[in-house]
Amino acid sequence: MRKQPIEITDYANTITAALRRGVLLTTKNGEKVNSMVIGWGHIGRIWELPVFVAYVRDNRYTREMLDANPEFTVNVPVNGFDKKAFTVCGTKSGREMDKLAEAGLTPVPPEVVSVPGLKECPLTLECRVIYREEQTAARLPEALRRRFYSVETEDHIAYFGEIVAAYLIED
Amino acid sequence: MRKQPIEITDYANTITAALRRGVLLTTKNGEKVNSMVIGWGHIGRIWELPVFVAYVRDNRYTREMLDANPEFTVNVPVNGFDKKAFTVCGTKSGREMDKLAEAGLTPVPPEVVSVPGLKECPLTLECRVIYREEQTAARLPEALRRRFYSVETEDHIAYFGEIVAAYLIED
Repeated sequence: MRKQPIEITDYANTITAALRRGVLLTTKNGEKVNSMVIGWGHIGRIWELPVFVAYVRDNRYTREMLDANPEFTVNVPVNGFDKKAFTVCGTKSGREMDKLAEAGLTPVPPEVVSVPGLKECPLTLECRVIYREEQTAARLPEALRRRFYSVETEDHIAYFGEIVAAYLIED
Repeated sequence: MRKQPIEITDYANTITAALRRGVLLTTKNGEKVNSMVIGWGHIGRIWELPVFVAYVRDNRYTREMLDANPEFTVNVPVNGFDKKAFTVCGTKSGREMDKLAEAGLTPVPPEVVSVPGLKECPLTLECRVIYREEQTAARLPEALRRRFYSVETEDHIAYFGEIVAAYLIED
């Protein structure tokens, strides 16, 4: 499959807009590949590097995957998204199933990291985690804390992923 | 001065590209207004809110200002930037001087927060800090840690600012 390299600064609009509907975050540990839906994320620069920040709850399977193999891909739909794929990836846990197969998503061999992209979500950021920060939800304003957190294992971990490759997967 | 409201998702490209050259981060405490140059920052969403993340070293005057009054504006030049203004804001500390006057920057009354925008950097994000996280540079990969940090007071603090207004200042 061909890949068209892109500049992040040309696609930050697309990525921030897509987060409002949901994009996929894919991880790999051993032979297991897993995608979850994310609606939160940050794109920008830190330490003079292009970095995507992903937020994953402590109790998530993706958190286990990331801590075992700290690389991920961000997979952004560009021509609409497949409702079934997003329902599977957004509601099931990969602990007990092969979400990609269930969701009908096709892994695409990556360029730099070990985690594949997804043919159905062609705008791809390959990221390598360079920093990890456990957030403390207890320090959030009360209304946000009550809305998003009930127990401590739901606190998010911020994964700062250096963007080491960025491209559009072409058919 | 007129303000043209904008959608963040239409200007994320502009903002991420501008960070490569430098944008201004303005704070206010009492009557004192201060701007520093930043080249690091993240734009995106968390807690279902549009949020700009600014990174400020612990030993900076801006850090004192932000902790006293946790609001800031991000000020992005759109038609080139004034070298003198950026040299002043990027090399001097506001502790001992009025950087805005020195830099020839004109404050513009804000819409929601207490911190002004800047006429010369018309693309404006008004932000209210909803979360603050002290980073631990010791956990960075060795090469990055050595390049950006020598003493602990240089560690960065991540200020998560909810974007409560976004606009272009028009002449």
